[in-house]
Amino acid sequence: MSANLAQKLIHSHLVEGEMEPGQEIGLKIDQTLTQDATGTLVMLELEAMQLDHVHTEVSVQYVDHNLLQEDFKNPDDHLFLQSACECFGLWFSRPGNGVSHPLHQEHFGIPGKTLVGSDSHSCSAGALGMLAIGAGGLEVAMAMAGFPFYLKMPEIWGIKLTGSLPDWVSAKDVILEMLRRHDVKGGVNRIIEYHGPGLKELSAMDRHVIANMGAELGATATVFPADEEVQRFLRAQGREEDFTELAADADANYDLEDEIDLSTLEPLIALPSSPGNVHKLSEVAGEPIYQAYVGSSANPGYRDFAMAAEIVKGRHVHPRVSFDINPSSRQILMSLVNQGALGALIQSGARIHQAGCNGCIGMGQAPATDKLSLRTVPRNFPGRSGTREDKVCLVSPETAAASALSGCITDPRTLEMPCPRITVPEVVTTREDLFQPPPETDDPTQFELRKGPNIKSIPDFEALPDELEVPVLLKMQDNISTDEILPAGARVLPYRSNIPAISQFAFEQIDPNYTDHALDIREAGGHAILAGENYGQGSSREHAALAPRYLGLRVAIAKSFARIHWQNLVNFGVLPLTFENPEDYEELDQDVLLHIESLRHQVAELPTVEVQFNTHKTITARHGLSERQREILLAGGLINWARSTRQKQA
Amino acid sequence: MSANLAQKLIHSHLVEGEMEPGQEIGLKIDQTLTQDATGTLVMLELEAMQLDHVHTEVSVQYVDHNLLQEDFKNPDDHLFLQSACECFGLWFSRPGNGVSHPLHQEHFGIPGKTLVGSDSHSCSAGALGMLAIGAGGLEVAMAMAGFPFYLKMPEIWGIKLTGSLPDWVSAKDVILEMLRRHDVKGGVNRIIEYHGPGLKELSAMDRHVIANMGAELGATATVFPADEEVQRFLRAQGREEDFTELAADADANYDLEDEIDLSTLEPLIALPSSPGNVHKLSEVAGEPIYQAYVGSSANPGYRDFAMAAEIVKGRHVHPRVSFDINPSSRQILMSLVNQGALGALIQSGARIHQAGCNGCIGMGQAPATDKLSLRTVPRNFPGRSGTREDKVCLVSPETAAASALSGCITDPRTLEMPCPRITVPEVVTTREDLFQPPPETDDPTQFELRKGPNIKSIPDFEALPDELEVPVLLKMQDNISTDEILPAGARVLPYRSNIPAISQFAFEQIDPNYTDHALDIREAGGHAILAGENYGQGSSREHAALAPRYLGLRVAIAKSFARIHWQNLVNFGVLPLTFENPEDYEELDQDVLLHIESLRHQVAELPTVEVQFNTHKTITARHGLSERQREILLAGGLINWARSTRQKQA
Repeated sequence: MSANLAQKLIHSHLVEGEMEPGQEIGLKIDQTLTQDATGTLVMLELEAMQLDHVHTEVSVQYVDHNLLQEDFKNPDDHLFLQSACECFGLWFSRPGNGVSHPLHQEHFGIPGKTLVGSDSHSCSAGALGMLAIGAGGLEVAMAMAGFPFYLKMPEIWGIKLTGSLPDWVSAKDVILEMLRRHDVKGGVNRIIEYHGPGLKELSAMDRHVIANMGAELGATATVFPADEEVQRFLRAQGREEDFTELAADADANYDLEDEIDLSTLEPLIALPSSPGNVHKLSEVAGEPIYQAYVGSSANPGYRDFAMAAEIVKGRHVHPRVSFDINPSSRQILMSLVNQGALGALIQSGARIHQAGCNGCIGMGQAPATDKLSLRTVPRNFPGRSGTREDKVCLVSPETAAASALSGCITDPRTLEMPCPRITVPEVVTTREDLFQPPPETDDPTQFELRKGPNIKSIPDFEALPDELEVPVLLKMQDNISTDEILPAGARVLPYRSNIPAISQFAFEQIDPNYTDHALDIREAGGHAILAGENYGQGSSREHAALAPRYLGLRVAIAKSFARIHWQNLVNFGVLPLTFENPEDYEELDQDVLLHIESLRHQVAELPTVEVQFNTHKTITARHGLSERQREILLAGGLINWARSTRQKQA
Repeated sequence: MSANLAQKLIHSHLVEGEMEPGQEIGLKIDQTLTQDATGTLVMLELEAMQLDHVHTEVSVQYVDHNLLQEDFKNPDDHLFLQSACECFGLWFSRPGNGVSHPLHQEHFGIPGKTLVGSDSHSCSAGALGMLAIGAGGLEVAMAMAGFPFYLKMPEIWGIKLTGSLPDWVSAKDVILEMLRRHDVKGGVNRIIEYHGPGLKELSAMDRHVIANMGAELGATATVFPADEEVQRFLRAQGREEDFTELAADADANYDLEDEIDLSTLEPLIALPSSPGNVHKLSEVAGEPIYQAYVGSSANPGYRDFAMAAEIVKGRHVHPRVSFDINPSSRQILMSLVNQGALGALIQSGARIHQAGCNGCIGMGQAPATDKLSLRTVPRNFPGRSGTREDKVCLVSPETAAASALSGCITDPRTLEMPCPRITVPEVVTTREDLFQPPPETDDPTQFELRKGPNIKSIPDFEALPDELEVPVLLKMQDNISTDEILPAGARVLPYRSNIPAISQFAFEQIDPNYTDHALDIREAGGHAILAGENYGQGSSREHAALAPRYLGLRVAIAKSFARIHWQNLVNFGVLPLTFENPEDYEELDQDVLLHIESLRHQVAELPTVEVQFNTHKTITARHGLSERQREILLAGGLINWARSTRQKQA
């Protein structure tokens, strides 16, 4: 039976489940990618699992997100990650090497392999014909420990590309066109597979641009075939031996289909403050701008920077514009130096920043109040730039550079110059030039984790007890978000490697005394919480489950849960229950005492749990756990479960 | 009568006083330099003075200190400074151009001119035969407004240089030798004048290194002759017409003398945590390091970066070392690109940061906990790097690069390679390439100050009243520092352009209710404070006077004052009084009511002021004000005085 490429990639890695859209499947994972902002917790999770060596073919730890180093915490994190790479057998990419996604494509990506990464743009690796998926940190840790990666089988969405891109229109405009058509939820539970004759127009790094921002469509993954362009790319990297030709069968079908005629595209722009708010650039030309930003994993290629350089060469950027150049990798920076592009940028008045994610994730380069910023980055969510109520627009490098010169939003087609032709130089930088390889030793005990004073091991959590008698510390309304459970932001983020410290911020907006109360009664058995509908909506941050668990949370009873937070609660050993009768919620007050007998038996054998209250009320609640999740919860969480499973296997 | 060069420079600009060491003199100022961290308040002071155009020959506003832009406040400051340059007629140096001191030397420095700058390293310009002095912001604002700059006539300290520097020893080792001999107070109330045959060894940028760190000796200024090396430098900058030969008379005398035979020097290192803690590098070789940092105004020259590049060329820096390269100016960065030095650094594993002060002033690049950091910067005061209890050492670029390779403190003389010979390329970048010139207009009203929401004009303060009846809000002990009056640090500094907001932090460590109390009674006449000995010790920050004045402080009575804070109080219209009988301090309590009659008459005509208290006690206190200062205080502060003086002149 004929298959599309996404199906082939899944089929070749399927270890559990059926390939029916919506069914849970388990996949063997070949490669993992972690970055520093999520990686420190992943490494602490590996420590807690007592892993001695990663089970993947390749795992790489990048340092690209936080390079600011305002105090000891940030550089301590870097040294900790480096030591964890030695302990667990990962490749380490030092600060200054650049952004994980282009670096991974240059040095590690291999057609036909699977990758999970603790970064939502890990899907970029689909540019090389990989099945690459962004996931939470603990899921990546599990993949490193050799466990399958579970997901619901997505629909496969075939996008046929035809025609050729006009002058001044580039890959960024292709993905902006996808967002214009389908908005930010258009790809949810789908894998996007690009195919068709238009592909020959797009280099491997151009495809990276499109695969990267599949995340903005909400897609599970984006897949490109591994064709001559991919072979050319790998040859230039000195890795032609890693090439395998991969494509959909000629008569393959897709669950859904769409088509883009590249020749009909024109420069596009995502206006504030959503990647889906896409308009024709010509409609907003002339608005004054104060920042033009080139770089990030959404426009990481040599051609993206060289194109900007050709446009500004011999001219000066407008006096009011901060023209921020953020190189994406050391190799690309070197090529820009060698080919004269960096010089052209410097002489035009650009600010050349260190290679890394930088302003794309709000680590510096925030725009001024109420001033338009044009960026080649993937996201313009409100405030992501560091400035609340910012006005960030997403554009191509051509548009960013043209607008930097004029000081206004400028359609590059109006520039009085021929469209530059960029030739990507073939510069080979070996892995060994850039990365610290996993140590060649069978004795990992010679290495130890280097923990600065702000880095603390994940606390041990006990298995689920058979009897619980704990008070309800909080009764909350509907739609409590993970920001209310555990806030983000510059005040809290530096403690992400320090569960005891970050726990001090738990629920602080809801009840400033929660932390003290919880700690007081933690040793006596812990506590429970009650919530309304959609509890735990918002970000996927694991700390929103981990911090309350550290403070003694054992049971959360809600009318309903947000999906990812519900999984995180299970993963960290908190029993999530939903009211069988939602009206019971009304009759229960904060501070009631909750009592569950034969808890292990009920979780293991029954679909529901009986919960008694000291108000003489008894309710029935559903746990909705799969067989695997029952085991995890009984073990006290995924880390305990993985540790004991690995011990049994050994 | 014969004169040394420092005397000639002073004599040619003397507008008041006698050139007797210790006597107050007033100097005409030709040039000013401001940077962003101090410049925003300077511009607000010019606004408050109602200045329409600077009266100097050249005033330049640089943006180099804070380039992090974590939120709107920092980029708003940059736009505000740019608008102030348009309003008041300054040159504007955009973010990314680099560090003020090397930029000023490249593009504006002229032998024989005077310069004051609101940055302690403004003394760097002495490298070109200028008299260049760092000062507080309001003093620089006064110079811009055309008023003389006042200081006590320093002693002139002649340092004779003989011999030639050995291989691997450079200008940084010369100034470290000065610090080894004389420590951090060795230059206080002195101008250091270098002369002698050893000068021919030192390029104009080498002299910058030595002049820059005269600040670390506590010197008022450092002066080099304007000789062939200076002429060569200005010719390379396309500014040979700015050259004038300047030197001490052949038979000139100095108040003090010392001599350094350059051929006897060896690589030196200032160990944590004082620039005066200088040792031979060979004594500490072998200690592991985790950071090597090249850049800052203390080693800004092309040769400093090119030397580091030659040392690491074709090699890789040690895996544990963060090798941080901070280009000092756009011109130098361009030269490094053109000459291949930047490429060599990139390929070695260095992190290339944007041109600016950056980690030198603790804006990023903080070292890890308890880990040695080797830096070419001028200062290693505790915590200045951003990491409390840091371990920062000051070294030459040769030592930083050699140590980056080995991962340990390494004497560059032990490298197995010939000492590189650096040829400085002659790259001409014009002012117009880099700077926004003052607008060519006689109508400055066409421009307006662009103030973000965090930038507030300096409040108007009334003239000294003739009768005061105010309560004593605080009674404080001895040695209250400006940190206790108004703290520094990342929490408070972002509000330096916002006096109402920064005032909320005044005295918070002493009395958290002070601010509320003071505001409650501000309209009723304000308040007074009492203090012991040495009130206002510590930093020179003007906000420690300005914020309490904003909150209504009118009189401060102390046993004694720290000199600079006493001046700041006068400058912002607060009457500083010292007890004629220190025992009176003991008899007065917080919350007593203070009453002064005929205050203007007493300040104008008498050396003392009678102060009555509602405890039926009356004391006599001295003001110690000069004639000029009496006028300032009667006017309600220096800004009011300058405004009215300028109106009288007009």
